[in-house]
Amino acid sequence: MGDQEVKLLGVWASPFSKRVEIALKMKGVSYEYAEEDLSNKSPELLKYNPVHKKVPVLLHSGRPICESLVILEYIDETWKSGPSIFPEDPCARARARFLAKFMDEKCYPDIWKIGGSKGEEEREKAIEEATEHLVTLENELRGKKFFGGDEIGLVDITANTIALWLVVVLEMVGIKFLLKDKFPVIDEWINNYLDNSIVRETLPVRQDLLAYCRSVFQCSN
Amino acid sequence: MGDQEVKLLGVWASPFSKRVEIALKMKGVSYEYAEEDLSNKSPELLKYNPVHKKVPVLLHSGRPICESLVILEYIDETWKSGPSIFPEDPCARARARFLAKFMDEKCYPDIWKIGGSKGEEEREKAIEEATEHLVTLENELRGKKFFGGDEIGLVDITANTIALWLVVVLEMVGIKFLLKDKFPVIDEWINNYLDNSIVRETLPVRQDLLAYCRSVFQCSN
Repeated sequence: MGDQEVKLLGVWASPFSKRVEIALKMKGVSYEYAEEDLSNKSPELLKYNPVHKKVPVLLHSGRPICESLVILEYIDETWKSGPSIFPEDPCARARARFLAKFMDEKCYPDIWKIGGSKGEEEREKAIEEATEHLVTLENELRGKKFFGGDEIGLVDITANTIALWLVVVLEMVGIKFLLKDKFPVIDEWINNYLDNSIVRETLPVRQDLLAYCRSVFQCSN
Repeated sequence: MGDQEVKLLGVWASPFSKRVEIALKMKGVSYEYAEEDLSNKSPELLKYNPVHKKVPVLLHSGRPICESLVILEYIDETWKSGPSIFPEDPCARARARFLAKFMDEKCYPDIWKIGGSKGEEEREKAIEEATEHLVTLENELRGKKFFGGDEIGLVDITANTIALWLVVVLEMVGIKFLLKDKFPVIDEWINNYLDNSIVRETLPVRQDLLAYCRSVFQCSN
């Protein structure tokens, strides 16, 4: 299938859009990128994702694929030439899918709760909940460079939310050393992950994301 | 891999457990079944699904797989002999995964909202939201016998929630003809789906589920 027919509708500050960009680059797929304005969604976004009206949407030869985890499966199945995003063994694949889902259903909402928390008590509770999930990830990573083993895989890509978005939110609320102090394995993984050239060139600049998060949460920290 | 080493931790009234049972039977996999008491979870459940502590859990040669959609992927990848649960074409696979996710994230919570709604206004709102999602499914099914085409596939199996749980909840709240009146395509699909011998022998008896839902929602309808 021709790479020239690949288009991504995304948003620069969305960890979900960035997952798809990282996967396409890992596979060496050329693509056109269209930045969406979520306050004024494009007719293309509304046409191709009428159910959720959300980014990312991948268009391949005009056919839309929606939802970042679904798109990552599609990319791995469609472009076999690059490195595999999913492990070969069915049991390891299941574990990776489980953790990717866990990232979206548990970890990401908690990050947003920390950012949006009002007052000390609410913030403490949000951090406590997030901490419980971080323990799971810390144990999962122990003894490995990446969630995917020696190379970046599905869980690493979905964990964009931890590697940058959580870090920025923690900085915003004034506890930027939480990971370094309490989760040294995750902290080391973040360094390894951000050191990857594709990840580094794809994720937003930290200061830009920090400014964005401050504006979203109307926070003056 | 030996079929004799397959065990499922489930709950009879859970549409998620029933998905896994249907898939295992479709593939002709023999398995041991252990009914869980969610008010007194077994040490096995807590050991093998420490993150969510929920059913279903599939144990294969002692290795646990959690989350029903992840388990369905695992079953299809592991037992190749039976009919495929997922479509062959990557684009069709992506659509099936999208709809399965949609079923869990949008449709199922709405069914529970209808069941748990207090008063006329709250119920009307819940039904209105569910109706919007049912329109999506009605359009998806038009011209097809099953979501999977001529045969049952991933989306049909995940749509247990529609075929029985929604039907029972609608009966419980006194609007059992909603589907027949407004969603004839879904209504016909339900008949076709429940007519499948594996589905029929696997899903709970309707009256039992109705009694269960009434007790859960403490509803005297």
